[in-house]
Amino acid sequence: MVDHRPALDETHDPARRSWVAWAQAPGTDFPIQNLPFGVFSRDGGEKRGGIAIGDQVLDLAAALAAGLFEGEARDAAQAASGPSLNPLLALGRGASRALRRRVSAILAEGSADQAKAAAYLVPMDRVTLHLPITVGNFTDFMASRFHTARMGAKRDPANPLPPAFLHLPIAYHSRATTVRVSGEAVARPHGQSLAPDGTPRFGPIQALDFELEFGAVIGAANRMGEPIPIARAADSIFGYCLLNDWSARDVQRFEMMPLGPFLSKSLSTTVSPWLVTAEALAPFAAPAFARLEGDAEPLPYLMAAADQAAGGLDVALDCWMTTPRMRAEGATPARIVATSLRHLHWTFAQMVAHHTSNGCDLRTGDLLGSGTVSGPEPDGRACLAEVVVEEGGLTLPNGERRSFLEDGDEVWFTGRAARDGFVPIGFGECRARIDPARPFPTA
Amino acid sequence: MVDHRPALDETHDPARRSWVAWAQAPGTDFPIQNLPFGVFSRDGGEKRGGIAIGDQVLDLAAALAAGLFEGEARDAAQAASGPSLNPLLALGRGASRALRRRVSAILAEGSADQAKAAAYLVPMDRVTLHLPITVGNFTDFMASRFHTARMGAKRDPANPLPPAFLHLPIAYHSRATTVRVSGEAVARPHGQSLAPDGTPRFGPIQALDFELEFGAVIGAANRMGEPIPIARAADSIFGYCLLNDWSARDVQRFEMMPLGPFLSKSLSTTVSPWLVTAEALAPFAAPAFARLEGDAEPLPYLMAAADQAAGGLDVALDCWMTTPRMRAEGATPARIVATSLRHLHWTFAQMVAHHTSNGCDLRTGDLLGSGTVSGPEPDGRACLAEVVVEEGGLTLPNGERRSFLEDGDEVWFTGRAARDGFVPIGFGECRARIDPARPFPTA
Repeated sequence: MVDHRPALDETHDPARRSWVAWAQAPGTDFPIQNLPFGVFSRDGGEKRGGIAIGDQVLDLAAALAAGLFEGEARDAAQAASGPSLNPLLALGRGASRALRRRVSAILAEGSADQAKAAAYLVPMDRVTLHLPITVGNFTDFMASRFHTARMGAKRDPANPLPPAFLHLPIAYHSRATTVRVSGEAVARPHGQSLAPDGTPRFGPIQALDFELEFGAVIGAANRMGEPIPIARAADSIFGYCLLNDWSARDVQRFEMMPLGPFLSKSLSTTVSPWLVTAEALAPFAAPAFARLEGDAEPLPYLMAAADQAAGGLDVALDCWMTTPRMRAEGATPARIVATSLRHLHWTFAQMVAHHTSNGCDLRTGDLLGSGTVSGPEPDGRACLAEVVVEEGGLTLPNGERRSFLEDGDEVWFTGRAARDGFVPIGFGECRARIDPARPFPTA
Repeated sequence: MVDHRPALDETHDPARRSWVAWAQAPGTDFPIQNLPFGVFSRDGGEKRGGIAIGDQVLDLAAALAAGLFEGEARDAAQAASGPSLNPLLALGRGASRALRRRVSAILAEGSADQAKAAAYLVPMDRVTLHLPITVGNFTDFMASRFHTARMGAKRDPANPLPPAFLHLPIAYHSRATTVRVSGEAVARPHGQSLAPDGTPRFGPIQALDFELEFGAVIGAANRMGEPIPIARAADSIFGYCLLNDWSARDVQRFEMMPLGPFLSKSLSTTVSPWLVTAEALAPFAAPAFARLEGDAEPLPYLMAAADQAAGGLDVALDCWMTTPRMRAEGATPARIVATSLRHLHWTFAQMVAHHTSNGCDLRTGDLLGSGTVSGPEPDGRACLAEVVVEEGGLTLPNGERRSFLEDGDEVWFTGRAARDGFVPIGFGECRARIDPARPFPTA
């Protein structure tokens, strides 16, 4: 039997430990087996690429200047030294893989470079993390059948899935310019929606929701007119992040017929600051979501044996929340969603193959969202709209009720890839607080 | 009574003539009253900005180097000297207005600079025209009620307009990377759609359509979180072009529920190569489309007196077509659509105000499409789908029938702004031929 799982190397060795102490902390997102890329600045200085290790960030430009890299790894570190990781992504996976192996060796216990490299570590609590990539285009999919079915149940309870859902990964283009990094507040936007009496109103939106999603970032681009076949599609993904596709449900209901969501989604999208590479996630490859009995098999352009066997990812995703009252009461944050990427009906390779099947080019730094990663159970409802549909709203541990988010509410996602025999890795946080609406300018 | 029409200056003077002979040719798109910006190259050389005049292109970099510009006009010419006009657009309207006035003076009969400037004119038939801007984002609206109603009539003949149509300019984000300049062929893409028996199929698409649209290009950007109020919205538009929003109707029918069109639109978008400035179009300002009796008045964030009085544009738009058989027979091209921008229900200022109303930032070089500019009469059906809905297909003068486009068909748009007492101006062509599908890659 062919083993379709991605190749592993010494960087995945669970016995490898780092001389950075906190890289071994229980529950850390950033053990030496992860090594995600980000962009940071310090004391208002220039933005530059870094790699997270435990509670530290390795300053790639400084390490490069100190002569720690050579060959392909040096090219990669050079490309990752600026204010955006796009030049690194554009090099393709080979260069970043070489850099990853070299950084893993440098940071491993027993490295001859420990003393040298230690000088280029910056404590994570001393840096500002920025959007790591220049997002040229943002395409958002709808890959969970559980999310799709709950959202469609009101329209047609007997047939809640749209006709195309089982045949292709449904998607829409969303707004690239309003993608922002974790930590930036989301001001409640204005929008037009229907008042209860059916007349249009314009003002601060009333049904602000989160959507717990997972994001994939494109590495090397394809040329327009040249589709990426499914067998090669996974290679075009550089890495992954957590993604909150903030949604104005009242606006969405009114505007989306027939051209889909527009301003209800472009208000803001939050991503976690670290790009966890496809290499780091290799041990957590999983079979694609099993089709249910009676589901049609997708057409051949979306099917490849390796992708079906190992194109999924075993990543647990949680959503946490506090309200102003909870914070005032000193309450612990409430975990309001617990779900898994295993619930996605489509793999990211299928998304790439479909997206490019008409010859559309994907460019370096393009962001693909999975859509709300909902699972079948009640705690897998990965946005408030699903809870509202089924139960009218959410009850928090302190008894507070929410249909949608209120000013001052804070929401964040965490993710964790785990598998027996491997060191679990995480993604950092994807967090934002809801600020009150600003006055609308009239002139 | 307040005159809301844009201010005119000497560049609009119908008595002004150019020493470039063809600028006075009857029917030319490029009299001295137009002066649109484009990007050209010559003999495979570097791309650079130019201004069209008659049958010539003024090489801005060369004219700049020769010292023909100073002050704001020099800054604008400098910004327009590279391979993309985005730096010019980013300067805002003041700089390009200064350059326009200076170029108009240089090219006018009696100019002291005639001999000098003549050296920097390049015959248009000797240059290659390129996409004039770097399109960061492409938003496509649906602003004609006639198009919208014909497309919706099948769904609900009694209520063919979507609920939001009269209340806001409906739009979706489309794909920015597949916007291409006039003249580049469109290869028939592959796509998934439903076969007549209701099973999904994948292959070369079968219902390839054009959509005759008008495009607006954003000049100076707004900051995220800062909506552009309707009273200032028109100022953010640098200029306009013709736009063909190629559409795969078979793919669209299957994929668009519920998130809107995706691959059916991202296959390719063709734009005309010249940006006709808002200044050049000032004489052709027209009232916004009159609402019909019973239509609701839009909410205040979309309404401004000046925009209602003069936010429309009086531009006639035509679509022309030849088939391989027509060309073999030496037939004259068929004019298959004759419509006008006056039929748009929403102004471009309203589109900008709505787009930014949730705080979304529009960036320099962003492209806004009007949606199919259909009118009420049969010759105003500005895409084939409307003709198919009403008559099953199009009959060409030679008796050929088309439901949708076939390989080898060529389609192009022309536009003309005209008004008594002013010299009419045009846009150049927005043209492409349909190439056969390429083999689909399998590995």
